[in-house]
Amino acid sequence: MDNGQYALKAHKEWGGKIEVISRAKVASREDLAVAYTPGVAAPCLEIQKNESKAYDYTRKSNLVAVITNGTAVLGLGDIGPSAGMPVMEGKCVLFKEFAGVDAFPLCVDTKDVDELVQVIYKISKSFGGINLEDIGAPACFEVERRLKELCDIPVFHDDQHGTAIVVTAALINAVKLKGQEPRDLSIVMNGAGAAGISITKLLLDAGFRDIIVCDSKGILCQGITPEEGAKGEIARLTNREKKTGSLADAMKGADVFVGVSKGGLVSQEMVRSMKTKPIILAMANPTPEIMPEEALEAGAYIVGTGRSDFPNQINNVLVFPGVFKGALAVRATDITDSMKMAAAQAIAGVISTDELCPEYIIPDPFDDRVAQAVARAVEEEARRLGINRL
Amino acid sequence: MDNGQYALKAHKEWGGKIEVISRAKVASREDLAVAYTPGVAAPCLEIQKNESKAYDYTRKSNLVAVITNGTAVLGLGDIGPSAGMPVMEGKCVLFKEFAGVDAFPLCVDTKDVDELVQVIYKISKSFGGINLEDIGAPACFEVERRLKELCDIPVFHDDQHGTAIVVTAALINAVKLKGQEPRDLSIVMNGAGAAGISITKLLLDAGFRDIIVCDSKGILCQGITPEEGAKGEIARLTNREKKTGSLADAMKGADVFVGVSKGGLVSQEMVRSMKTKPIILAMANPTPEIMPEEALEAGAYIVGTGRSDFPNQINNVLVFPGVFKGALAVRATDITDSMKMAAAQAIAGVISTDELCPEYIIPDPFDDRVAQAVARAVEEEARRLGINRL
Repeated sequence: MDNGQYALKAHKEWGGKIEVISRAKVASREDLAVAYTPGVAAPCLEIQKNESKAYDYTRKSNLVAVITNGTAVLGLGDIGPSAGMPVMEGKCVLFKEFAGVDAFPLCVDTKDVDELVQVIYKISKSFGGINLEDIGAPACFEVERRLKELCDIPVFHDDQHGTAIVVTAALINAVKLKGQEPRDLSIVMNGAGAAGISITKLLLDAGFRDIIVCDSKGILCQGITPEEGAKGEIARLTNREKKTGSLADAMKGADVFVGVSKGGLVSQEMVRSMKTKPIILAMANPTPEIMPEEALEAGAYIVGTGRSDFPNQINNVLVFPGVFKGALAVRATDITDSMKMAAAQAIAGVISTDELCPEYIIPDPFDDRVAQAVARAVEEEARRLGINRL
Repeated sequence: MDNGQYALKAHKEWGGKIEVISRAKVASREDLAVAYTPGVAAPCLEIQKNESKAYDYTRKSNLVAVITNGTAVLGLGDIGPSAGMPVMEGKCVLFKEFAGVDAFPLCVDTKDVDELVQVIYKISKSFGGINLEDIGAPACFEVERRLKELCDIPVFHDDQHGTAIVVTAALINAVKLKGQEPRDLSIVMNGAGAAGISITKLLLDAGFRDIIVCDSKGILCQGITPEEGAKGEIARLTNREKKTGSLADAMKGADVFVGVSKGGLVSQEMVRSMKTKPIILAMANPTPEIMPEEALEAGAYIVGTGRSDFPNQINNVLVFPGVFKGALAVRATDITDSMKMAAAQAIAGVISTDELCPEYIIPDPFDDRVAQAVARAVEEEARRLGINRL
């Protein structure tokens, strides 16, 4: 039985990967009178008087919504809201198993940005945080931006920021291993969708100044790339030397390749055209932009992929459980760029200088120190910013 | 410590009455590759091909949303969406504990009917059923009607139909105990909100033909009560003799009083004005329309209330867990009037003719035969109607 067949069988046996259980005992009339009427009126009235009491008297304090509209599910594309739900449930499982955070999956049946924003906003009081998931670009940028403005709880599009944080963590350690500084390295970022754009912005924040971004048509360049939208913004922020051309042109002489694009796009020749001992993060799934053994053969010093069967798995699961755990712990109103950076540094910091080596620049997804470290860092940064409510 | 203080303490200790847990193991990379990427793509693609597969591969098969906008919470009124959440969580606890149905609480922050309908509709694919809760009249009628049209899953406003079903069950047994037929009894229904109107309709369906409905201004009467809206409809369906006047006028010579109104509205004199051995279901909470001991002293034969500290507790918890359990078991597309009637008969039928007595016309809320019996009846009726998908 192949993995797909086995997964179908397992999913059918599970009958759903999440379950809603009761934390309150109701074995007697007395129990019922506390958890339900008439006792339940007391917490209702407390919350009516002071909305923030919802954190004390309901599950809001530990509850994240995992929400999609099914328009960009995994690499499968626009498969619709219902079809996206197995991924959302899987994400909820990871929230719980990796950080003890309760997460509940929801699909919203609309592709209209206004409607998607409105639906999510109107149910947002039910939760302590919102994890947006698998919403296609460019809609995802506006949806997240508007929800962050409207909601008083953290809103986090994991496809953008989860990926950005884990890539930044990997490159922080890669730079350390090479004994250089972020400003010393030139990066080629291939992919200008939700992930590529967010990675680029966080890398700029982290001090990586020399970045060239490519989409499927080649290098993004101010003056050539249309100004409006996310790509136009990125073109203004990157490619200072105004290079033009293909991905192959961009990679010549570069130190780092970061791919969130398609399998097989990078040849050994392209790796050989980079500076010596380049860093390759080839994260296309399931087939990387270049397979690790080929990249290493062509001279790569450090190789990371999205896959669990090679060293340096660049996996969001290192990020979102801890980020929300930390945000919820202090009842934060937002997850800011500086909180994302704190998370990236925390992930990188889990690996000690002694342990750091080309095959180990990023912690294992099952390293249980990670969610704790990330949560603590996010929590501290929220406190420093004063956006905590606890 | 009074019940309210104790309930506050208990709610704080619980930290929310529900919890979302994982049904899937993710202890290894291999587990992760089944529950999440890449394995999860297989169920996604199956659902994309055939939407009904969502019942096989996600929790939809056993999952109900408990949704409010906080406009009519318990007897507290319009306390807002967040403040309604302790009740929603309590309801979810009851779904799970009484019938093994997973239920998840959501509040929607709007009083606008169009918006409420749209928000709920747009997230409805995430669930196998929708339990509307504590939405004020008359908005609740239109919200439910429109959602039933839009959604292909059961939509059930418990404040209306849960109450209607349990009252109908109680009166089916009361009639049996008196050795009469439904058509022999005259009923005064006090309260013309969501519950009162739904009770009246289901009682008419059950063969109770002589019903007079009162609101706070007195008897509803065709030609006097404004024609539009739910009250106008009820005025046309009831009060055939076109009586007018007060609640006291209505009660003279009646066999049954059903109250979903306010504490203390019914005096002993009013009970004495009824036919001999009247039936009193005084369900105002926490103080009944008349206290049981007073009603019995004034000649009542059977008395029921909403309270757990008197015999014959008329409690919705006898209804909604089993109704949804049955509907979900056959993946029903709707909960129809005939399914409600089947539920009422099933509840009544739990008490054998031998056991039936004035102090025991309705099963105890903790009688675990009830949810099973209701589920089976609802399931069978759905199959008979052909609105099952399994």
